[in-house]
Amino acid sequence: MRVFIAGVDGYLGWSLALYLAARGHEISGCDLFLRREWVAEMGSQSVTPIRRMTERLETFRDHFGTNLQFRKGDLRDYNFVLNCFRSFDPEAIVHLGEMPSAPYSMVDVNHAVFTQMNNLIGTLHILYAMKEACPDAHLVKLGTMGEYGTPNIDIPEGFFTIEYRERKDTLPFPRQAGSWYHQTKVHDSHNIMFACKIWGLRSTDIMQGVVFGTRIDEMKDDERLVTRFDFDQCFGTAVNRYCAQAVIGHPLTPFGRGGQKRGFLPLRDSVQCLTLTITNPPKPGEYRVFNQFEEIYSITELAQKVKKVGEELGLKVNIRNLENPRKEMEEHYYNPDHQHLPDLGYKPTHDMEQELRIMLNDLMKYRSRIEVRKEALNPDIRWDGTRKKVRFLSRGAEEQGSKGAEEQGSKGAEEQG
Amino acid sequence: MRVFIAGVDGYLGWSLALYLAARGHEISGCDLFLRREWVAEMGSQSVTPIRRMTERLETFRDHFGTNLQFRKGDLRDYNFVLNCFRSFDPEAIVHLGEMPSAPYSMVDVNHAVFTQMNNLIGTLHILYAMKEACPDAHLVKLGTMGEYGTPNIDIPEGFFTIEYRERKDTLPFPRQAGSWYHQTKVHDSHNIMFACKIWGLRSTDIMQGVVFGTRIDEMKDDERLVTRFDFDQCFGTAVNRYCAQAVIGHPLTPFGRGGQKRGFLPLRDSVQCLTLTITNPPKPGEYRVFNQFEEIYSITELAQKVKKVGEELGLKVNIRNLENPRKEMEEHYYNPDHQHLPDLGYKPTHDMEQELRIMLNDLMKYRSRIEVRKEALNPDIRWDGTRKKVRFLSRGAEEQGSKGAEEQGSKGAEEQG
Repeated sequence: MRVFIAGVDGYLGWSLALYLAARGHEISGCDLFLRREWVAEMGSQSVTPIRRMTERLETFRDHFGTNLQFRKGDLRDYNFVLNCFRSFDPEAIVHLGEMPSAPYSMVDVNHAVFTQMNNLIGTLHILYAMKEACPDAHLVKLGTMGEYGTPNIDIPEGFFTIEYRERKDTLPFPRQAGSWYHQTKVHDSHNIMFACKIWGLRSTDIMQGVVFGTRIDEMKDDERLVTRFDFDQCFGTAVNRYCAQAVIGHPLTPFGRGGQKRGFLPLRDSVQCLTLTITNPPKPGEYRVFNQFEEIYSITELAQKVKKVGEELGLKVNIRNLENPRKEMEEHYYNPDHQHLPDLGYKPTHDMEQELRIMLNDLMKYRSRIEVRKEALNPDIRWDGTRKKVRFLSRGAEEQGSKGAEEQGSKGAEEQG
Repeated sequence: MRVFIAGVDGYLGWSLALYLAARGHEISGCDLFLRREWVAEMGSQSVTPIRRMTERLETFRDHFGTNLQFRKGDLRDYNFVLNCFRSFDPEAIVHLGEMPSAPYSMVDVNHAVFTQMNNLIGTLHILYAMKEACPDAHLVKLGTMGEYGTPNIDIPEGFFTIEYRERKDTLPFPRQAGSWYHQTKVHDSHNIMFACKIWGLRSTDIMQGVVFGTRIDEMKDDERLVTRFDFDQCFGTAVNRYCAQAVIGHPLTPFGRGGQKRGFLPLRDSVQCLTLTITNPPKPGEYRVFNQFEEIYSITELAQKVKKVGEELGLKVNIRNLENPRKEMEEHYYNPDHQHLPDLGYKPTHDMEQELRIMLNDLMKYRSRIEVRKEALNPDIRWDGTRKKVRFLSRGAEEQGSKGAEEQGSKGAEEQG
């Protein structure tokens, strides 16, 4: 199939391009390289030394014997998007080209507005360009499980049938997102559902869990094919950050009480699921929602897994809970459905510890690249709009004795960096 | 109270300023006069000859003995918004400063993107500026009943408690808006709810029905105090358009089968309700939703009411259904709650026919101002993205015989202008 990937320079985008190319699909993609700039703005860098796009493209051709048709450009430029679709005539468009960080969106008013504008305009442009250039194409849109928040009932896949005052209807499941970034995904979902309804476009909206991992098999031990791996407070997600912390001897730092439950999946499952979605498109006019994750863990359970595997590899790993810079529930019910993808043939990677072993081994090679930017590990972007380094909590961290809160607090604040 | 009105030059904004001033409130407001430009873009004008802001402000001072503190500026300029709030220190902020037309948002990709950016950025700026300058102020935000769409169950006021798989939660009621414009109100609602949650701001989100009317008593027969009245395909709403059509002998034109039900309220009720909302603020951190309308009618019933009153006044009034340029259900269940405002003391104006009589009499004075722009009455903005004049339907219009569809269709297409 002809697959267009918006955001092909990113963590998922680059991995997906390799995975699809290895299976004979024809790939085109675009990127503006903003992710590289945002991570630099956070004082950080990818742990893996990713190459410039020209070198990535050469290596891609060497390995797969075909070109990845790349265009540098901005999704906020409508004619750019339209030209991409007109010249490539995609059968599927995978939209990974958004600003993907909750903390980045919470920095200040400018970051909030930038995030909402960037993400909404890009998606609106893609919808209009599809309508104009390739109305039969399938839009695979990356949303997030975070759109749902943490309601006290089961979370279905996008829609649910309910009875209310003795009448019945099937309705979109209510969204309660927890950052300006997560809100953009909610807004996008509403916009896409509407476009499918009025124009007969087809789309799968992926409510994805938290992805972790350093590689997929299609990277073939060629360092030039490796995907990026972020560990800073904005672009590093929970498991990836824990692993980066473990390899430099920094405590693993769950936020708050650490009872926050989320759905997780390894990078190799994410590209597997996206590929299943692409090769099994919905009907014209259909808007469907997939909850895409493998298993649910609390962030404390995750930290414990990283600690266990790290110690097996000879690392000394502590867990110390941090004051929570976010506003979120730290203990809650969480039971989202995730049956649509298994129904299409998704075979989950069940051994998380094996994946963590691969990750830690990969990261140990680049320990110095984390060391040199380790300040970026320390969160200071708070949901209350202030910017102030968060402190270690005095209780709840398994490895800690019972030092006084103040002592640990002030010590923690300095010590982390 | 000190009340800041964003969009104070508009249909509701100007009326509300007069209503509040007559009750001793201190008013400040801003506008960029974009509504005047958009209506001109549609080839139309306000039926009522509204004055330039300088003259409006002079008249305001003459009548109320106090200044309306006006600032011209753009809500998309954060420092402008912040300075407005810093200097006036409002106790309530009424946000009426958005692009309010569904068809205008559907013209093309540029209008869609403009609408979403303009409305979302303005609201985000207001939220951040409140947080920075006046965190105790109460944001009264104009949403629309159109956020809910037309579900097959009752519509509560914003939230509902449901049981799902034997668990219970109170959740935001799902939104299914029917245009890019209506989607902006949904996005705003999500953003505002989130700001209240994380920053402790307080807000009332008004899901308002369709407003009609030419005046409120506080305009005192001084023509310089009159509010605008639009009848073009974008900015004229159902009843107002019907009345404008009736006075120039143009058929009243319900869209499609005409069974679309909506909540309606006269302008005098809208300002009454907004004032009750302002003077009864929610608690800090509370986000509440009011469904603001008086009664539910189908658009056919409305046309019949306008016809009846028009004929009593000696007008010759026909009703002819038009092809529906929108994508919407034309027969549906509709039963929204609207109890919060009556609980605060809202006394509805129950005699719609009396209100229609006032409107038609007012509009007859300006018949020539409608005549000269009557082309603007003919819809050509379609939800499928094309732009082509819609035709009369061959059946369903009460006053018509049984002419052939084609004949009427082609005739209608020409005849309307």
